[in-house]
Amino acid sequence: MSAEQLEKNNTIDLRKKHIGPSCKIFFSHDPIKIIRAKGQYMYDEKGRQYLDCINNVAHVGHCHPDVVKAGAQQMEQLNTNSRFLHDNLVLYAQRLQDTLPDKLSVCYFVNSGSEANDLALRLAWQYTGHKNVITLENAYHGHVSSLIDISPYKFHHASDAEHNQSVHVAPSPDVYRGKYRADHPDPATAYADEVKDMIHGVHEKGGKIAAFIAESLQSCGGQVIPPPGYFQQVAEHVRKAGGLFIADEVQVGFGRVGSHFWAFQLQGDDFVPDIVTMGKPIGNGHPMSCVVTTREVAEAFMSSGMEYFNTFGGNPVSCAIGMAVLDVIEKEDLQGNALQVGRHLTRLLEKQKEKHPLVGDIRGHGLFAGVELVKDRLKLTPATAEAQEVIYRLKEQYILLSADGPHRNVLKFKPPMCFSTEDADMVVEKIDQILTELEKALGLKLHNISNVENESSKRKPTNENGHQCLSGLAHNRGSTQGVPQRSKRLRT
Amino acid sequence: MSAEQLEKNNTIDLRKKHIGPSCKIFFSHDPIKIIRAKGQYMYDEKGRQYLDCINNVAHVGHCHPDVVKAGAQQMEQLNTNSRFLHDNLVLYAQRLQDTLPDKLSVCYFVNSGSEANDLALRLAWQYTGHKNVITLENAYHGHVSSLIDISPYKFHHASDAEHNQSVHVAPSPDVYRGKYRADHPDPATAYADEVKDMIHGVHEKGGKIAAFIAESLQSCGGQVIPPPGYFQQVAEHVRKAGGLFIADEVQVGFGRVGSHFWAFQLQGDDFVPDIVTMGKPIGNGHPMSCVVTTREVAEAFMSSGMEYFNTFGGNPVSCAIGMAVLDVIEKEDLQGNALQVGRHLTRLLEKQKEKHPLVGDIRGHGLFAGVELVKDRLKLTPATAEAQEVIYRLKEQYILLSADGPHRNVLKFKPPMCFSTEDADMVVEKIDQILTELEKALGLKLHNISNVENESSKRKPTNENGHQCLSGLAHNRGSTQGVPQRSKRLRT
Repeated sequence: MSAEQLEKNNTIDLRKKHIGPSCKIFFSHDPIKIIRAKGQYMYDEKGRQYLDCINNVAHVGHCHPDVVKAGAQQMEQLNTNSRFLHDNLVLYAQRLQDTLPDKLSVCYFVNSGSEANDLALRLAWQYTGHKNVITLENAYHGHVSSLIDISPYKFHHASDAEHNQSVHVAPSPDVYRGKYRADHPDPATAYADEVKDMIHGVHEKGGKIAAFIAESLQSCGGQVIPPPGYFQQVAEHVRKAGGLFIADEVQVGFGRVGSHFWAFQLQGDDFVPDIVTMGKPIGNGHPMSCVVTTREVAEAFMSSGMEYFNTFGGNPVSCAIGMAVLDVIEKEDLQGNALQVGRHLTRLLEKQKEKHPLVGDIRGHGLFAGVELVKDRLKLTPATAEAQEVIYRLKEQYILLSADGPHRNVLKFKPPMCFSTEDADMVVEKIDQILTELEKALGLKLHNISNVENESSKRKPTNENGHQCLSGLAHNRGSTQGVPQRSKRLRT
Repeated sequence: MSAEQLEKNNTIDLRKKHIGPSCKIFFSHDPIKIIRAKGQYMYDEKGRQYLDCINNVAHVGHCHPDVVKAGAQQMEQLNTNSRFLHDNLVLYAQRLQDTLPDKLSVCYFVNSGSEANDLALRLAWQYTGHKNVITLENAYHGHVSSLIDISPYKFHHASDAEHNQSVHVAPSPDVYRGKYRADHPDPATAYADEVKDMIHGVHEKGGKIAAFIAESLQSCGGQVIPPPGYFQQVAEHVRKAGGLFIADEVQVGFGRVGSHFWAFQLQGDDFVPDIVTMGKPIGNGHPMSCVVTTREVAEAFMSSGMEYFNTFGGNPVSCAIGMAVLDVIEKEDLQGNALQVGRHLTRLLEKQKEKHPLVGDIRGHGLFAGVELVKDRLKLTPATAEAQEVIYRLKEQYILLSADGPHRNVLKFKPPMCFSTEDADMVVEKIDQILTELEKALGLKLHNISNVENESSKRKPTNENGHQCLSGLAHNRGSTQGVPQRSKRLRT
């Protein structure tokens, strides 16, 4: 089944006929048919090579031979459920535990990030006996119904009447475009205080907090990096109210941020979530994911008397693949590569910011980076159409990048972790050319906005934990943000 | 990772340390460590062979070489998401469509039966604009939070206050132990009228029906076979109320019932659900599943403007595996084998019923069969402890069988589809020996209950659709059913 069997048009026709129309495709006017992939490259039916800057699921590189071998060998031996003892299950759990703080010691293996986040909510509801959940603006946590409820990225369109009344949306800790920005003396405290006030409001109405949930770095929400110390303070408020802190590492975990294995660790060694969910990169494309929590939470979940059984979760094949992924990350020092190449990429992008007025903000850690395009650095008017144009023109040059965030104006880098400095050079060079052409067409010049840049407005460097220090940020606090219509969008 | 690396006790210790205690194991006092499996056999760390009568997930046989090969080859080539065109996705969708009535033409590929049933609810909610769901007593539809709500098998323990008020539980159409039994002149209509009355009740309170959901044959609920015509009538009532009929084929689809590819087809050619969910057997253990619905429902779902994206769903590896499973079912005529061996197994079990007072009812289709054990054929007192004893003694003789149903007194057969007549002979012979010993110990003799057996009380043969005609059924309508405490149980 690996070779192309159908003419591309036939594939498209059959897809229209038999696949749910809500399942969107990249570049719908001229979609790409991919036949094979290797490392950070994908190949279409004509053998054309695409540089993949977006598939964080193919974490250690597409079709990594060690991962394929581990999966194939285990498939030949045994693939059954976790009601039987098997070494892969417990050895893999132990390996994951080794990457986490000691108190996060109990694993539940499931099949997707959605199953993981849903189980995290169930654990929190059961442990606390409370119902209310606080989520962040623009958050995306999955596609099952309980998670649509806590994903403003998804439910934004729905009427208020349809909203789950026990879900509360706190401001995104976005120091570029959010309520408190980089020039605020203490944005971490200011954003955390918003959560504290929200908890107070819930209590006033007689509700109780079960959990606060956030991606350790918001991905679909626009590659948002919360200010260090924010999670610690939120956790303090939430725990004081009897709730749990759930860190969603589905998109950003497993060494992607370079300096640390888990993105929540960027907040500092003094921060440990109560529940961590992991997904996409865990099996390099194999459908698997995991929830890790504390002994106390696990015991409380058991005390309900309700068994938890997941047919495929933790099967020997998934666990063999999961261990192979961890082996490759270690053997090829992919976390180190993410740090080094990520730094290089960020430096290149910062230079683009110095050169191109369309570039409003550069942010990220390791191989998780965002380039926010704006038409006006003063008003932060999102350059949505321009971002789409960049994506389309890159595609014509065989580079896969995507744009996301509430305004779809943030170019998202989250490539396979074998992404190289040469790859970074190439893609940034192309972006440079495209932005130059776009700005010429728009009549945009850097001096138009240079007057609003000053030292005090720059994103504050964070020295702890080996953070990359990103600098340069417009400081405007104006309320006119030129919010475009939020239409159906692709999460990538 | 395939060979044993740890002493069994170490595996157990690590499991206790790192795996959620709600994740139960078979035979917890002396669990089985399985190292490899082939066809209908599993092998422990000492090389001992177990006959597998329960793993319906390993549908075409454990580690079938064709399935392993298809998966391994595709893993080497490409494993990515469905935002790119790929032939496997559309060809597999077409293959599934070929097995279904024409109007069920649109597929959504997901990762588990739970994801499938949750999506089915989302489709129904969106299409109808209604919220209320009717489910069956003792039903199990999955482990995500929305499905716990519609799974009385799971939420039985929870207090009424915790129940979702938009979920309504209709009587299980169980003609052996249920409200209307085999001696009722028209149990199908009687049970369907219960649903009609329930809809009326919902309307009276101002609610509206989004869906009725049922397994085409109840599995965890006790291998319950709804009387033919029941689904048609329920569908009529539900559709009249603007709702949809969701057939859950996660456990019972893909040829298992022998006479048909889908278990809902046992109800007759005039019955077509609006949504069909499939799971466990679809990938022979690979984490994958699917929702199929009509064009109308799919278009309505799209009209919400909300994209549906599932990271792993419909990836080229899953689809290659899915097609290989369909190929093997066809090539090895496993549906035919299910019909033939299922008939043989049922005949053997019927003889056990003639011989053993503990056997209250034999029911099933193909390789989906149930043996309900009772201490008293008059009162139908569930022989729960005896069923557990049978399971334990079989395990000692290297046969894996399980007991389920609300009273955990129904022996469940759902073996890999390559199960043979010799396997059936062997397991029934062992059951015969065990029941003989148990009845001797209990002082049970057949003549104690023979007086309540008469021709009129027997389960009505159903001639259409090649049904196996099961006969023999106690007719007692007494209300004392000896309901034991429903404690946490294993779904198998």
